[in-house]
Amino acid sequence: MRMTGGWLAGLGLLLALGVVGPAPCATKGEAAAPPTLAQILEAAPVGDWRAVDPENTLYLTLPQGRVIIELAPEFAPDHIANIKRLARAGFYQGLSVVRVQDNYVVQWGDANSSHPTGGGQLRLKAEFDHPYRAADRFVPLPDPDTYAPTTGFAGGFPAARDPVSHLTWLTHCYGMVGAGRDVDVDSGGGPELYAVIGQAPRQLDRNVTLVGRVLQGIDLLAALPRGHGDIGFYQTAAERIPILGLGVAADLPESARTPLQALRTDSATFAAVVQNRRFRRDAWYHRAAGRIDVCNLPLPVRPAPVK
Amino acid sequence: MRMTGGWLAGLGLLLALGVVGPAPCATKGEAAAPPTLAQILEAAPVGDWRAVDPENTLYLTLPQGRVIIELAPEFAPDHIANIKRLARAGFYQGLSVVRVQDNYVVQWGDANSSHPTGGGQLRLKAEFDHPYRAADRFVPLPDPDTYAPTTGFAGGFPAARDPVSHLTWLTHCYGMVGAGRDVDVDSGGGPELYAVIGQAPRQLDRNVTLVGRVLQGIDLLAALPRGHGDIGFYQTAAERIPILGLGVAADLPESARTPLQALRTDSATFAAVVQNRRFRRDAWYHRAAGRIDVCNLPLPVRPAPVK
Repeated sequence: MRMTGGWLAGLGLLLALGVVGPAPCATKGEAAAPPTLAQILEAAPVGDWRAVDPENTLYLTLPQGRVIIELAPEFAPDHIANIKRLARAGFYQGLSVVRVQDNYVVQWGDANSSHPTGGGQLRLKAEFDHPYRAADRFVPLPDPDTYAPTTGFAGGFPAARDPVSHLTWLTHCYGMVGAGRDVDVDSGGGPELYAVIGQAPRQLDRNVTLVGRVLQGIDLLAALPRGHGDIGFYQTAAERIPILGLGVAADLPESARTPLQALRTDSATFAAVVQNRRFRRDAWYHRAAGRIDVCNLPLPVRPAPVK
Repeated sequence: MRMTGGWLAGLGLLLALGVVGPAPCATKGEAAAPPTLAQILEAAPVGDWRAVDPENTLYLTLPQGRVIIELAPEFAPDHIANIKRLARAGFYQGLSVVRVQDNYVVQWGDANSSHPTGGGQLRLKAEFDHPYRAADRFVPLPDPDTYAPTTGFAGGFPAARDPVSHLTWLTHCYGMVGAGRDVDVDSGGGPELYAVIGQAPRQLDRNVTLVGRVLQGIDLLAALPRGHGDIGFYQTAAERIPILGLGVAADLPESARTPLQALRTDSATFAAVVQNRRFRRDAWYHRAAGRIDVCNLPLPVRPAPVK
């Protein structure tokens, strides 16, 4: 935790390669140190990275900068089609970030807005879970979890499943994005969205429809001033953060996009990342946990190499 | 997640009573709703609250406001005696918050400072765990945990223990405060401190000495601008947040203190709080998790009633 920089005392959920410090040198006479996280990523074959699809990417533009969200159409197809419809109609433009509750969520949009919807809906049937399917490319973690029988990763997203009901769902980890709803479970749809900025609120799993995760810019959301109203709502219009834009990346000219690659969560490199986080073997660690929580793993993202 | 205010969709780790919304009304014809968290706390006998001891309380004063930290002398007696010595000598005055890593920690102080120490040390032997003892008043949670055989609460702090080694230790939950160290496990001591502002980095348990937790003001730390250097260090002096003061509450006149009470974690009221969080029974929840993570519970704090 000191200013030694090189020791990977910890990494955020979103790992930009540039953040990783230099590898600690093996002391002479010792066996070579196991690879660091940075070395594992540097050694990844090209095929272990995937291009993030601009058609499934949202840019939320705030005065603080661009927040990049990857959508999860395998898990919430109706919500995502709807959110894209709303975004393309300019629905979110001029709405605001209305709520920042410490250690919980940032929330934006407005389910009662009369903005144009482009044929989109203000409420939709919940998409909480779905039966096992090969397309999820679910890779389980062997580690015990407080909330679910099995956790793991599905197509780049933290997820869980239940071998009894054979259902799979996304999990509320830091940076995940969901569609706020009212008391009626089918009152979500996307006009209000939230991102998790604290300890994983796993009690929300299968209670709200998750639609994706923040690939870049969660730090911008997490550093917003907290709201002082009930459950973190801003109390005055002046406090609200204006949404300068919320659009689909594919609708922008290539020159205006932020092309990203994400490490495939069903790759050998990601398996090595998980093992590296489970057993911290750098010199700083006195004791390796030997276990990892599905919400305590980096899901590596990097700028797409210039063609 | 809508602006209905009354639905306790979630609460931070630090719960101020004022934050709790109105209780949802039972719909006529239905059985009376189970008590809400607010109702549980309102009904708590006076004896279920304890006064937070000013001799074990630090005030970290930043331009953003006062951050109140309760120390855990049962767990780190040497570190805490040392930190109080440093604080009383004015060691931290004029040092800074030097690091804000998103979803991880805020760090302040300087282990290489030549500030007066008042006889305190810049490094101390680690205090990672200790044998079971009655004074811990450890109350176990039955819920499974990824990282430890048993989790629970000890004297107001989230903790874990191992029935094989009969050791107990504090756990790295949101808001916990620790003493940064270098690679040598015995290089901590308190001149550098950190607070957790993201997903519980439980891999740090028993790797760094935890000294307490933030009772009030963690939102001020968590909203600080992120550093853009390696592992979140600020890159320029201008970015650093000056420490206007870090002192022991008992050294201030009573009129300048912020008197707080904390709910006893070995009380019946706290057991009811845990059960309330494990089984969300308000109308918003479609499905109750039935489980709770030791780092996903509020540890209620309130202003001490005026005498």
